[in-house]
Amino acid sequence: MRRVAIVGGGMTPFAEHFDLGIKDLLPQAFRSALRSVDKGMERGDIEAAWFGEVTATDGFPSGILADSCGLLDVPVTRLENACATGNDAIRNASLAVGSGAFDVVLAVGADKVRDGSARQTFWEWMSGNRDMAWDFPLGLVAPANFALHVSRYLYETPATREHMAMIAVKNHRHALPNPKAQLRYEITVEQVLEAPIVVEPFGLLDCTPQSDGAAAVLLAAEEVVDRYTDRPVWVRGVGLGLDRVMHAHKKDMTTFPASVRAAKQAFGMAGLTPADVDVAEVHDCFTGVELIDYEDLGFCERGQAFRLVEAGDTCVGGRLPVNPSGGLKAKGHPPGATGVAQCVELFEQLRGEAANQVDEPRVGLAHNIGGPTAVSAVTILGRERD
Amino acid sequence: MRRVAIVGGGMTPFAEHFDLGIKDLLPQAFRSALRSVDKGMERGDIEAAWFGEVTATDGFPSGILADSCGLLDVPVTRLENACATGNDAIRNASLAVGSGAFDVVLAVGADKVRDGSARQTFWEWMSGNRDMAWDFPLGLVAPANFALHVSRYLYETPATREHMAMIAVKNHRHALPNPKAQLRYEITVEQVLEAPIVVEPFGLLDCTPQSDGAAAVLLAAEEVVDRYTDRPVWVRGVGLGLDRVMHAHKKDMTTFPASVRAAKQAFGMAGLTPADVDVAEVHDCFTGVELIDYEDLGFCERGQAFRLVEAGDTCVGGRLPVNPSGGLKAKGHPPGATGVAQCVELFEQLRGEAANQVDEPRVGLAHNIGGPTAVSAVTILGRERD
Repeated sequence: MRRVAIVGGGMTPFAEHFDLGIKDLLPQAFRSALRSVDKGMERGDIEAAWFGEVTATDGFPSGILADSCGLLDVPVTRLENACATGNDAIRNASLAVGSGAFDVVLAVGADKVRDGSARQTFWEWMSGNRDMAWDFPLGLVAPANFALHVSRYLYETPATREHMAMIAVKNHRHALPNPKAQLRYEITVEQVLEAPIVVEPFGLLDCTPQSDGAAAVLLAAEEVVDRYTDRPVWVRGVGLGLDRVMHAHKKDMTTFPASVRAAKQAFGMAGLTPADVDVAEVHDCFTGVELIDYEDLGFCERGQAFRLVEAGDTCVGGRLPVNPSGGLKAKGHPPGATGVAQCVELFEQLRGEAANQVDEPRVGLAHNIGGPTAVSAVTILGRERD
Repeated sequence: MRRVAIVGGGMTPFAEHFDLGIKDLLPQAFRSALRSVDKGMERGDIEAAWFGEVTATDGFPSGILADSCGLLDVPVTRLENACATGNDAIRNASLAVGSGAFDVVLAVGADKVRDGSARQTFWEWMSGNRDMAWDFPLGLVAPANFALHVSRYLYETPATREHMAMIAVKNHRHALPNPKAQLRYEITVEQVLEAPIVVEPFGLLDCTPQSDGAAAVLLAAEEVVDRYTDRPVWVRGVGLGLDRVMHAHKKDMTTFPASVRAAKQAFGMAGLTPADVDVAEVHDCFTGVELIDYEDLGFCERGQAFRLVEAGDTCVGGRLPVNPSGGLKAKGHPPGATGVAQCVELFEQLRGEAANQVDEPRVGLAHNIGGPTAVSAVTILGRERD
C-alpha cells in the first residue's frame, strides 16, 4: 500500500458547547486543520472524507459534514465504532489513500454528548454501544462495565486506587497548558480518593467528563505530500481489534483483548515495537483503564503498570509521556472526535509544536478502547516515513 | 489500485422477521455467502470486514457482527450512510482490498425495521437521517420528502401516476420467482392507482415495505481470486455522492444530484458508460423514484423515463432490465442490507444463476439514493476484469 501522511490537523476546544451544534463544530475543526497546512491547501484539493460520529445528534451525519464544510462534491462515509470511532475514521481514510483511489482526503470526528438530551437521554445514547439483550438492561453502561474490569484488575495486581488517582493528577496537570482541554485545573490524590463514588472503584475524579467537540486531520499520499508540507507526519500503522460484546463472555477481565489485537496489527504494519514509542495518547475514560492500556499496548509487563506510575515514567518529562494533552480525563471526550483529536495532538507533538510539548518524539501512538470493551483502534504516527 | 472481485454472496430472505434478531440474521447471510464460494472459503481466510447498519437495533453493531459470525480476530468497521449504506460498505471494502492491506474481506449489510419499535418508534429511527433542525420537525421523513421530488417531477415531465404504477407492477412481477423477496404477488395498475394515499403522489402500492434482513458479499484481490472461483464478478467501479441535506436548499427537485455524482465516479472508475449496463438494481423506495433514477443514471434523456416504462425496456426480457430481483418495492428494504443485496443479485445475474435471470448480462449496476435525498452510492460490477 502507498505511504500516507498527515499534513494538517486541527480541533475545536472540547467543552460543554451548549451554544453550538455539530454544524458549527465541524467547520471550525475543518478550517483549523486547513489552516495548519504549511504550504496551504484548498478545499477543492480534498477528494474524499471519512466522518466518525457515534450518534447522529443533529441529523444525517455524512450529509451534514458535506453541507456544513462545503464538501458536496466529495464522497463522505460516516462510520461508527463506539469510542474507537475517531481512530477508525483515520484508519479507513488511510486505507483509501493507500489504495491509490484518492491523493488527499479528510478524516473528521465529532460528537455532542452534553445536550444530546434534547432528543434522547444519555442512556438512550449509550444503547447503540452495548449488548441490548443482556448487558444494557443490567445497567452495564460505560462506568459500570469498565468498573468490572478495573475492580478485577485491582484484585489481581499490586495496583491500588492511589495509582489510579495518580493517573488523574497527571492528566489534569498535563491539560493545564492545553487551550483545547475541558478541565484545566490541578487536582490532588486526596481529592480524587475523597470524591463521591460513581461506581466502585471510580470516584467522580476518576471519570472523563462528557464533552462536545470536533477534530479533523488531512491525509495525503506520499506522491503529493511535498505540495503541502516539508514536515509531514507519517501514518506508520493502523489497527482495529474486536472482542466479545457481552461481559459474561469475557474470559479475563484484567485485559482488553481488542487493544492487544489492534496494537499487534498497527505495530506489525509499522515494523515497530512498543519500545519505539516516544509519546502516546491512550484511552483513559476511567483512570484505571489507563493502567490496563499500558499493559495491553506493551509499555510494561502484565501487572506492572503501577510501576510506571510510581516512577513518573508516563508524565511529560518521563521516559514515555502518556496523554500529554490531558487525555480523555482532562482534555475531554466527545467520543467520535476523541481518536482524531489524539492524532491532532500527536501531529503537533511530532512536529514540536504541541501546547505541552514532550522532548523530541519520533514515534507517537494513539489508542482507544470503546463500547462494551469490545473494540479498540490504534494509530502509530512517525516523523520518519519508515 | 488493485483489482477486486466478488467471489461469494448471499442473503437472508427479506421479510418481517419478528422472531429473529440481528444476531440471527447476520450469521445466516454470512454462511450463505461462504457457501456460494465455488472452491470454498474458510472463515479464517477473511482478514477484515465492513458492516453497514443504519440503526444499532440490537446493540453495538461491529461487535455484534464479529461476535455472531465468529470473526473476533478481524477488524470490523460499521458504517452508515442512510439508504446508501450497503453499497458504501462494498465501496469501503473494495478500497481496502485495493490498497493491498487485505486480500480477502467481508462486506455485510443488515437492518431490522419491523420491530425497532421495541426500543424506538419509526420516527425516532428516521431522525438520524434527516436535518433535525428543520426538515424532521416539518415531517419530511422518507415518504414526504421523496413525494416533494416526485410531485415536481410529474409536473415537469410527461410522466404520470400510471407510469409510476407500471413500475410497481413490473417490480412485483419480477419478485415472483425470487425466494428472498418479501412481496411475491402480482398487482395491477388499477390496484396501484386505487390504493389508499400515503402522501401525494404515493399510494400504498407505490411504497416499499418495511423489512428485516441481512446480505453479505466476499471480496478478494485479483492476486487470490483463483483460490476461490473461476467465475469472479469484478468490482469495476464504486461511487458515492452527497447533496444538500435540507430540502429548502435543493435547486431542482426533478433530479438527485447525489446520484449523478455517484454515477459519474463509478462510471469513470470503470471506464464504462450507461450504454454498457445490461442489468441494474436501482433505488425504488417509491415508484416515481425509479423514474428519476433512470435519468440520473443516464439510462435515458431528462424527462424521458416514461418512454422506457411504456416500451417495457426495463422489464426482464427488455433492453435494460431494472430490478429483476423485485427491487426495494417487492423484494423489500432493510436499509443497511439493501445495497449489499443488490450486489448479491447482480453477482448471481452476472454468473447466470439468478432466480429471475436476465439474458447473459456482462455489466450490472447497483444504485441507492438515501436519507434526505442527500447521499447516493453506485457500484458497477462486470463479468470481465476490464
